[in-house]
Amino acid sequence: MDTYQKIMVALDLSSESEAVLQKAHLIAGLNADIHLVYVQEPMDNIYVGIVPQSAAFSGLGDLEARLAEEIKQKLSALGEKFSVSLENLHILHGSPATEIHRFAKQHQLQLIVIGSHGRKGLQLLLGSTANAVLHGSGCDVLSVRVGATS
Amino acid sequence: MDTYQKIMVALDLSSESEAVLQKAHLIAGLNADIHLVYVQEPMDNIYVGIVPQSAAFSGLGDLEARLAEEIKQKLSALGEKFSVSLENLHILHGSPATEIHRFAKQHQLQLIVIGSHGRKGLQLLLGSTANAVLHGSGCDVLSVRVGATS
Repeated sequence: MDTYQKIMVALDLSSESEAVLQKAHLIAGLNADIHLVYVQEPMDNIYVGIVPQSAAFSGLGDLEARLAEEIKQKLSALGEKFSVSLENLHILHGSPATEIHRFAKQHQLQLIVIGSHGRKGLQLLLGSTANAVLHGSGCDVLSVRVGATS
Repeated sequence: MDTYQKIMVALDLSSESEAVLQKAHLIAGLNADIHLVYVQEPMDNIYVGIVPQSAAFSGLGDLEARLAEEIKQKLSALGEKFSVSLENLHILHGSPATEIHRFAKQHQLQLIVIGSHGRKGLQLLLGSTANAVLHGSGCDVLSVRVGATS
């Protein structure tokens, strides 16, 4: 039995992503296949529930395109720093937990590494991706504690 | 930056505990300090909510003592198999997530390893220790997927 060879690191591309990636590297097998994944949630998913569809959203497509470009650059920079090949960098679209599960299953991954703020109470109810990823995951999940310690 | 050196493996002493312990061993540093922890929930915590205190509970103390002995034996057997020293075997009493968090903080652990059934939906609402441990944990958590894959 060898250590993890097929790993996904689910990143939010915040300043904490590097720390999460470092942990993944520490526990990965020598020639492990590491995939970096960012899930871009469609903006209308996020905002339309709050503000009704209106003229204010006419520029949303442009904004989304600029955001996509920024995400691509950040992901590439991380990939370069940690020697992850270009074909192992992935930008997915949809609901984070769903896309992460789908990707893990599709690529038969053994481990998902994700940053967690260790939320509890109300903060947790408001949503934690680490938590949602743990639910119903078909493989192991390493939740890396990021942010201030409680 | 080295891999995890101070690790707790939270066990339920089911047949799946060995698989969880194996994963912990795989990612542990060479001379890592590994603690095996079992949290025994007081029986009156579990049952008194369901059946009111009655004469039927008079034998509960005995049953609890026998259970404690069985737990001790199972934990010792696992410790021996994985070369964990006696002083690193711990039986705690109380609510699992609370005790696990307290122990991790007290021993300044870097990683909690715990088995997870990857529950979702109603099963999850009915309680998952892995999930409860992730919430509010001050350190990293590796949830090892056990049981049938979904």
